[in-house]
Amino acid sequence: MKVKGAVTFLPERAERDTGIIAGRNAVSEALKSGREIENIMVAKGAGGSVLPLISQCKKRGIPVKEMPRQTLDQKLPGINHQGIAAVVSCAQYAELEDILKAAKDKGTNAFILILDELEDPHNLGAIIRTAEASSVDGIIIPKRRSAGLTQTVAKVASGALEYVPVARVSNICAAIDTLKENGIWVYGADMDGDTVYNTDLTGNIALVIGSEGRGISRLVKENCDFLVKLPMFGQINSLNASVAAGALMYETVRQRLQK
Amino acid sequence: MKVKGAVTFLPERAERDTGIIAGRNAVSEALKSGREIENIMVAKGAGGSVLPLISQCKKRGIPVKEMPRQTLDQKLPGINHQGIAAVVSCAQYAELEDILKAAKDKGTNAFILILDELEDPHNLGAIIRTAEASSVDGIIIPKRRSAGLTQTVAKVASGALEYVPVARVSNICAAIDTLKENGIWVYGADMDGDTVYNTDLTGNIALVIGSEGRGISRLVKENCDFLVKLPMFGQINSLNASVAAGALMYETVRQRLQK
Repeated sequence: MKVKGAVTFLPERAERDTGIIAGRNAVSEALKSGREIENIMVAKGAGGSVLPLISQCKKRGIPVKEMPRQTLDQKLPGINHQGIAAVVSCAQYAELEDILKAAKDKGTNAFILILDELEDPHNLGAIIRTAEASSVDGIIIPKRRSAGLTQTVAKVASGALEYVPVARVSNICAAIDTLKENGIWVYGADMDGDTVYNTDLTGNIALVIGSEGRGISRLVKENCDFLVKLPMFGQINSLNASVAAGALMYETVRQRLQK
Repeated sequence: MKVKGAVTFLPERAERDTGIIAGRNAVSEALKSGREIENIMVAKGAGGSVLPLISQCKKRGIPVKEMPRQTLDQKLPGINHQGIAAVVSCAQYAELEDILKAAKDKGTNAFILILDELEDPHNLGAIIRTAEASSVDGIIIPKRRSAGLTQTVAKVASGALEYVPVARVSNICAAIDTLKENGIWVYGADMDGDTVYNTDLTGNIALVIGSEGRGISRLVKENCDFLVKLPMFGQINSLNASVAAGALMYETVRQRLQK
């Protein structure tokens, strides 16, 4: 029966609204087409034709998140997901080389951002938005344990994702080595660092921001040339990751303007 | 029938988890006790003993939000809310005079924050957290059209709400007049302003941050002594409110440290 005013909730509409492709055929087609996929969500106990899709994803390094069928139902209300759904990327990832080239071509000193396992899409979106406003050449994120370019991130970034290249790398330390070989100094945001106001950020720099809970990981920290911090005068002594990143990006802007 | 392992979802547990009091009796008791209440949520069409509670709230200036019963059900799953629920304040509000006194007593120049109709609780929480770290004496918010000190705000503030006094005023312009009478200069964050890096923020100051969508309202803007902006170099030209507030708070910190 067709009820006047009722809207059929089509899979295409689900993708437009959520950035998620649901159902075995749809996910299979997305994998074949070579579309960039952030991760696959699979209902616990799903079998049959879901299994070869899972092994395809594992082979291609796409993270597979297993969850109770009920959780998947809640994420996709009214959608016949058949136990599998794919979170697609909302933008094309850049290559690290593209970011380096963009930084060199623009004729002023490089300003690159490295986000070490930032997991909150709202933080990632807000940081992309600030990066766009503060002349950042590009952002480097790790492939694993990081929020990716999902629809939530794109929405929070308010259009900035169109203008800031984001590269996804397998290994942040290897990316840092590449930056160093290209004459870029790497500054990690860390409470053990010097006050950022006593640090010169006007050269070719990359700024590393750590994850919400743990900060920069030990190995990445050891790979930084310098550690910098924002002074803290209270009892809590930690900031929201996107606020800390924003204050540091704008301190870089200030130093470059006043140089 | 009692099922082993099943948990009865008691109203007390609901309040602890959500900061919301549900049900006619519970809301009536909360109103009698004089507890601070952010707003009342009422299911459309609720009548009977809900009506005198609504008029009590209106008399006391507590905002009443009418919504479909289904929306209330979703906000309070498994709770017998009887068509009415109260969002309670998670912290005691301060008075404007308390903030002024705290600013005078500490012996350094005043640093007060005014949030003009900031509606996103995540932004308010992140700003309280940054304010605590950057020596802000207190925050002023309007009674209407503003996020209040709800449980979400307290969570995002990560404990900072314990240390930063927040005053709720009926009229932001009147509060600005009071600040001016106390020798405080008022700086509004606005794209029409001067670059903040060319502005002296080391005196007795209050910084006004506007709402996420509209910025500072016209009347408040006209009441500011100065307008300041963060320079923007991109295509998007707007920042997340908590990031913009954070960058401005830390610019104030920098100027005071380097003075």
